[in-house]
Amino acid sequence: MKAVRAFAPATVANVSCGFDILGFAIDAMGDVVEVRERKEPGLQVVSIAGDGGRLPLEAEKNTCAVAIQAMLDELGKEVGMEIYLEKGLPLGSGMGSSAASAVAALVAANRLLGEPFEKKQLLPFAMAAEKVACGAGHADNVAPSLLGGFVLIRDYHPLDVIKLPVPEGLHCTLLHPHFELKTSDSRSVLRDHVSLKHSTIQSGNVAGLIAGLFQGDFELIGRSLRDVIAEPYRATLIPGFYEVKEAVKTAGALGMGISGSGPTLFALSKGEGNVQSIIDAAQQVYDSIGLGVDAYHSAINTQGAFVLE
Amino acid sequence: MKAVRAFAPATVANVSCGFDILGFAIDAMGDVVEVRERKEPGLQVVSIAGDGGRLPLEAEKNTCAVAIQAMLDELGKEVGMEIYLEKGLPLGSGMGSSAASAVAALVAANRLLGEPFEKKQLLPFAMAAEKVACGAGHADNVAPSLLGGFVLIRDYHPLDVIKLPVPEGLHCTLLHPHFELKTSDSRSVLRDHVSLKHSTIQSGNVAGLIAGLFQGDFELIGRSLRDVIAEPYRATLIPGFYEVKEAVKTAGALGMGISGSGPTLFALSKGEGNVQSIIDAAQQVYDSIGLGVDAYHSAINTQGAFVLE
Repeated sequence: MKAVRAFAPATVANVSCGFDILGFAIDAMGDVVEVRERKEPGLQVVSIAGDGGRLPLEAEKNTCAVAIQAMLDELGKEVGMEIYLEKGLPLGSGMGSSAASAVAALVAANRLLGEPFEKKQLLPFAMAAEKVACGAGHADNVAPSLLGGFVLIRDYHPLDVIKLPVPEGLHCTLLHPHFELKTSDSRSVLRDHVSLKHSTIQSGNVAGLIAGLFQGDFELIGRSLRDVIAEPYRATLIPGFYEVKEAVKTAGALGMGISGSGPTLFALSKGEGNVQSIIDAAQQVYDSIGLGVDAYHSAINTQGAFVLE
Repeated sequence: MKAVRAFAPATVANVSCGFDILGFAIDAMGDVVEVRERKEPGLQVVSIAGDGGRLPLEAEKNTCAVAIQAMLDELGKEVGMEIYLEKGLPLGSGMGSSAASAVAALVAANRLLGEPFEKKQLLPFAMAAEKVACGAGHADNVAPSLLGGFVLIRDYHPLDVIKLPVPEGLHCTLLHPHFELKTSDSRSVLRDHVSLKHSTIQSGNVAGLIAGLFQGDFELIGRSLRDVIAEPYRATLIPGFYEVKEAVKTAGALGMGISGSGPTLFALSKGEGNVQSIIDAAQQVYDSIGLGVDAYHSAINTQGAFVLE
């Protein structure tokens, strides 16, 4: 029987001022899904490795199966598949864990079926899976995991996804402190309304960030990494947030923000030269408040998910 | 005695989703200022043509003189100058009339003094004049009038002005209906707070517009010309707004918005091919509501203000 394995990268959604509209993909980490043809119709999640037994095997709750089912529904096909998920991403970390699983599953299943869909066309199926995993069909993790690079979700009705350029040498450090932050908690601290002034400031910074990416202007990217809408509230849920921010910027980071809804933090830098200093500086803050942290660093992934040949 | 004449173009501030952060300059129209050396120190506004006698000749109230005075204060110089202003722009139209006067005066005076400042350095002096003319030192008219093209005002503290690319062939139609709208009225209808949802939609569209300008993607520019924060309120003060918008889009415009705080409307299009249809379509709506309108069209000015040799 045929089998296909695919990899989908971790992602940073929101990207500071890009709250709810931007995301980018990380080279270093991701999930792998193998999909195998089987005779009996229907989807079966056979195994999940690396999740500590926490993810559901039931097809209607599993993001891989939900995503593939949405694709099969669109095709009007009844196909039997076995799904093997290898988690490379920690759960509930804000690094797009559920998105990577769904995207890897879709890319593998699409290849198994002879690629009836172009890559970009898989997006709505991945969003259907995000709806089951997170309660909302956001695209700011699944789009960059699928397509790579920086991705703008300009609109949802209809879906308008724009791939942005990645300046040569842009590097990302991820700091994953050892505690869990529920997306629902991180969402609930946000305000329903924002001041016109803050909305305008946010627009200016988003515009600056987009211009910085196109121009390869690292200083402009750094100046634009300022979120006045979500970060001030979410930072209250993340111990040491402002201390870490100051420390990593002093150590050479262009800027820092919350990855997705946290608690993972991301820092961008020009090249890898400052990465160890950035990690050391953050480590020192976390040590001082008695919190463990895992640090990763990576170039921006520009390829997105791909089949492992 | 030495004399220098300079031209500064009309500008469209706000640019729909770019509320309070974006502006661009228009080739077709602008103000001309001649500055002449004189022996006695102090600034004298000698004449203003084309304003119907409405603009003040007193140096401390005249935008040209206020701008030049701010420049002289920075230089610490006492220089005598005569100022001759030729208005090419209608007052209170939303086309950056006061900004064009101030910018033309600065560019002329700067040349007269042997160019002690680079062009971009003149910006704060023009903003000082805007503060006198409009009550707020906004840069979204003066920056594009000075520098040309599309300009992003990312931040004011400190001032961060970024020049954006102009796609080849981008064309602008301006529709100036025959009634006056006070900036203060247009400001007062705005809400102090906006919903988080609308703030996010605005950010997405600003990001799309910036990306569209860099990519030369006219369709993306058109889709992104959507303002959910200022336009819904300001449109209530502008007769026929939505009818004109629908008519010009049907006639081939990429999108339409309010120029500055109105009542002038701007429509962008790809090339000049549709311009006459756009103007005719708008004219028909204005005829139907019994309102006169002046229509102008022009390429985007990419040069900004310049000395007339």
